[in-house]
Amino acid sequence: MLPSGISIDAFERALDAFARAIGDEWVVRGGKELAEYRDPFAFASSDPAEFAPSAALRPGSVEEIQAIVRIANECRIPLWTFSRGKNLGYGGPAPRVSGSVALDLGRMKKIEIDEELCCAVVEPGVTFFDLYDYISERKLKLWISVPALGWGSVLGNALDRGIGYTPYGDHSEKLCGMEIVLANGELIRTGMGALSGAKTWQSFKPGYGPSVDGLFMQSNFGVVTKGGFWLMPQPDFFIACDLHFERESDLEAIVDITARLRREEIIQNTAVLSNAVRLISRRGARSQWFAGDGVVPDDVVEKALRESGLGAWNLTFATYGPEELADGREKIARQAFAAIPGAKFASKKFNVKATPADELAASMGSESAQAGVPSLIPLGVLKYRGEDGGHLGFSPVVAPSGKEAVKLANLVGTRCHERGFDYYGGFSFGVRHLYSVMMILYDKQSDEHRVQANKLCEGLVVEAAKMGFGEYRAHVAYMDLIGEQYDFNNHALRRFIETLKDAADPNGILSPGKQGIWPRGTRPKRNPV
Amino acid sequence: MLPSGISIDAFERALDAFARAIGDEWVVRGGKELAEYRDPFAFASSDPAEFAPSAALRPGSVEEIQAIVRIANECRIPLWTFSRGKNLGYGGPAPRVSGSVALDLGRMKKIEIDEELCCAVVEPGVTFFDLYDYISERKLKLWISVPALGWGSVLGNALDRGIGYTPYGDHSEKLCGMEIVLANGELIRTGMGALSGAKTWQSFKPGYGPSVDGLFMQSNFGVVTKGGFWLMPQPDFFIACDLHFERESDLEAIVDITARLRREEIIQNTAVLSNAVRLISRRGARSQWFAGDGVVPDDVVEKALRESGLGAWNLTFATYGPEELADGREKIARQAFAAIPGAKFASKKFNVKATPADELAASMGSESAQAGVPSLIPLGVLKYRGEDGGHLGFSPVVAPSGKEAVKLANLVGTRCHERGFDYYGGFSFGVRHLYSVMMILYDKQSDEHRVQANKLCEGLVVEAAKMGFGEYRAHVAYMDLIGEQYDFNNHALRRFIETLKDAADPNGILSPGKQGIWPRGTRPKRNPV
Repeated sequence: MLPSGISIDAFERALDAFARAIGDEWVVRGGKELAEYRDPFAFASSDPAEFAPSAALRPGSVEEIQAIVRIANECRIPLWTFSRGKNLGYGGPAPRVSGSVALDLGRMKKIEIDEELCCAVVEPGVTFFDLYDYISERKLKLWISVPALGWGSVLGNALDRGIGYTPYGDHSEKLCGMEIVLANGELIRTGMGALSGAKTWQSFKPGYGPSVDGLFMQSNFGVVTKGGFWLMPQPDFFIACDLHFERESDLEAIVDITARLRREEIIQNTAVLSNAVRLISRRGARSQWFAGDGVVPDDVVEKALRESGLGAWNLTFATYGPEELADGREKIARQAFAAIPGAKFASKKFNVKATPADELAASMGSESAQAGVPSLIPLGVLKYRGEDGGHLGFSPVVAPSGKEAVKLANLVGTRCHERGFDYYGGFSFGVRHLYSVMMILYDKQSDEHRVQANKLCEGLVVEAAKMGFGEYRAHVAYMDLIGEQYDFNNHALRRFIETLKDAADPNGILSPGKQGIWPRGTRPKRNPV
Repeated sequence: MLPSGISIDAFERALDAFARAIGDEWVVRGGKELAEYRDPFAFASSDPAEFAPSAALRPGSVEEIQAIVRIANECRIPLWTFSRGKNLGYGGPAPRVSGSVALDLGRMKKIEIDEELCCAVVEPGVTFFDLYDYISERKLKLWISVPALGWGSVLGNALDRGIGYTPYGDHSEKLCGMEIVLANGELIRTGMGALSGAKTWQSFKPGYGPSVDGLFMQSNFGVVTKGGFWLMPQPDFFIACDLHFERESDLEAIVDITARLRREEIIQNTAVLSNAVRLISRRGARSQWFAGDGVVPDDVVEKALRESGLGAWNLTFATYGPEELADGREKIARQAFAAIPGAKFASKKFNVKATPADELAASMGSESAQAGVPSLIPLGVLKYRGEDGGHLGFSPVVAPSGKEAVKLANLVGTRCHERGFDYYGGFSFGVRHLYSVMMILYDKQSDEHRVQANKLCEGLVVEAAKMGFGEYRAHVAYMDLIGEQYDFNNHALRRFIETLKDAADPNGILSPGKQGIWPRGTRPKRNPV
């Protein structure tokens, strides 16, 4: 595997130059170690040449990244940048363009925290576990926000617009100030970081004049080497709320009420709505419930629900703050959901202020994500189908309206069942939007599963877009297809972004094809539609 | 006055082309009407050729703007875009480069509101008064957020990163989705607007892939023709809080407490801290208190404070929500400020839900801004010095820390007094930063005032930057000087932005020099430092 248009000799010379810049032990030239940089689930095709890197580089400093970028420009080597590469459902570390050199930032693990201003500056290799441990060890009264799995990069997750489950769960929104190596090797700091000696780099996002931060999200415009994050002041109390609703047809009312409470900031964190299959799948192999192939029959699901005390829809969220405010919010939410007949509302209050952090963490089950405690618990779903489970998601953005959510859920549920997959579904509630959550859990050993999962995803991207739903994130295999749906004025926005891309990265060395943005000369590689 | 390098004949031909595109009655070729497009306070120099447009265009539609941009490219005419041009302290509608053609978007006044999703889409000509009236007439349960003066553009204010005084007071942060005419005449929609038919344009800011919205703020990258805004669901109650502190030396404690309460979202809106002169200046001509020239002596200020019941520092903010939450927040804030000896805390509760909007508005004084009711009340300060008063601001961003605020206030106060101006000062509290507020109120008829005001501002920009404080906004006369302070890695960020600018606007027709960003070929015009 080589970068396109590069001879073996030229490639070897480039790798030698990289090795001189960062040390030979940090250049991965092949073998088992390089195989780790492939798509871990490889569902879209069984072609080993697809989404495969030619080598990997593991720099340890900003200066080394600058050196890498300069060599890549000279040698015309495309780099595929990632922080930890742990976003397995989106392809993990796998590059869009085969033959790209993986630029693995996992070794860069510096953490700085300003306790007075409640913020952190982290390098890309810092995981949620790392940051949590750093804060715990120093007994700082600060909370982080974590996604479902804690092994990923704090910075990489925010740049990919990941979410967590505390009031600081919109991770890209809590990112304040970046340091970036540009495609030409120059180092910039954004926002107030552009003023040398400013103490406001982590206080004020925009800075002066045009703000470029958004350009570096889900993007190939630069290599982000530091990111500032706002951390949540530890609240005195938090109350985890857990609701169960009897009927599938409750969906419209649930969404309307949750969306209103979220908009009014009664519910302060990412509320999570889950259907039956989503919760059942966490309890291990599906074969415990159902021995057959195809979709689990309704009566089996209902039996499992009854036995486990779950509802057709299940909602979790939390309230936070001084006790009287956390209590007040819980009460208002409880009253609001009482409008849905049969709704069951349970809550559990945690006295954060009076409880040592380790004791608090030990007292929590699935609520831990709502308190920013990282875990790997949700990995359990990979045991749902087959011994060697994979997952693939479809996550369009939905307007915070019950009617819109019903429309989308009906589409996704129907299409899942048509392809023989259970509908693992739900919604995550931002302040002003919903993400639809759908995961295809499949057996990696089954060719039929892989083919059907791929067809299901492709079909949903196109069909949902026609109904006005666009995805906010993408597996490498779907980056072009999803980008294609963003078609206003014949893709005028993409043309504009690619014009900027060509100016910022004239040799097209940084992550070509990322999120459907291609450098000049490589655009014919964009997947035809 | 002509655009640089354009002959009279060529200019006349360009104006004729503009007139054919938008109608002759919307082309302003000179005279008194054109004089309205100058800096209303013209403090920096008395040269009539400075910051003066050559003509003005008043298009009525997106298509007309596209036509204007195409003609400007053909004829190499620089356009200076603004919405209402009412930001008088920053130069109003005056262009950075004399001879630019003013592109006045004031005629574009469409408003659309989605009541279910609590958002609006407005064109650039819509003022805060317009939007408020639109909502009032339809009795919608929605609040807007307004800056000190209601005559400006809702969209223009947000693009310039203006602020208001409700919980939605960070206006650029509440902007969700834009429509933009690019320099090449193409129309883009950002975020989810790039997906034709998406119902999420006003729900989800980032969209898919790199986000370009920040590039169009305080910028010359395009002409923004529509902006989406989140509107605040009308709260049941709001409680306006008014605090007075006895001693100037209370500043550090006040800032630390307010910043903490803001970060913890106990205080939900932009809290405003004002020193004595700032409040006294609202009560009309300074000559009522002090007949002399120069700085008002301390004993006169103290007498005025005693007579009016004000403090050396005075803080206003509000709490909002269902009654129990608004009450709870007020109580927590009251307890927190009791730590400062002599602090006086007064509050006034408004039952919004039970009061018709017009009655509510009529019952409010200066609290009206906290409820999003637009006014022109603060214009009164222009009567403070001389019959024909001007004002000029210095607004650096400060980290939310008492020590930092004291450092900045000492600097600004000292330098004001050295130049013979009263120190009109204070701070506005965002969630994670402060804006320092300082206004020089001066007599426009006094050459000495104008010269001193200019020297004061120039000196403060440079001196404050050395201490780590950078301004977030700029009068046209200071755009370069302020940009110059953002110097990390020898202005690497500015170089990057100008690289993008050249790609987006190769002929440099859009607002050259805006916020210190110059198109290729015009960079020698940047003010030398």
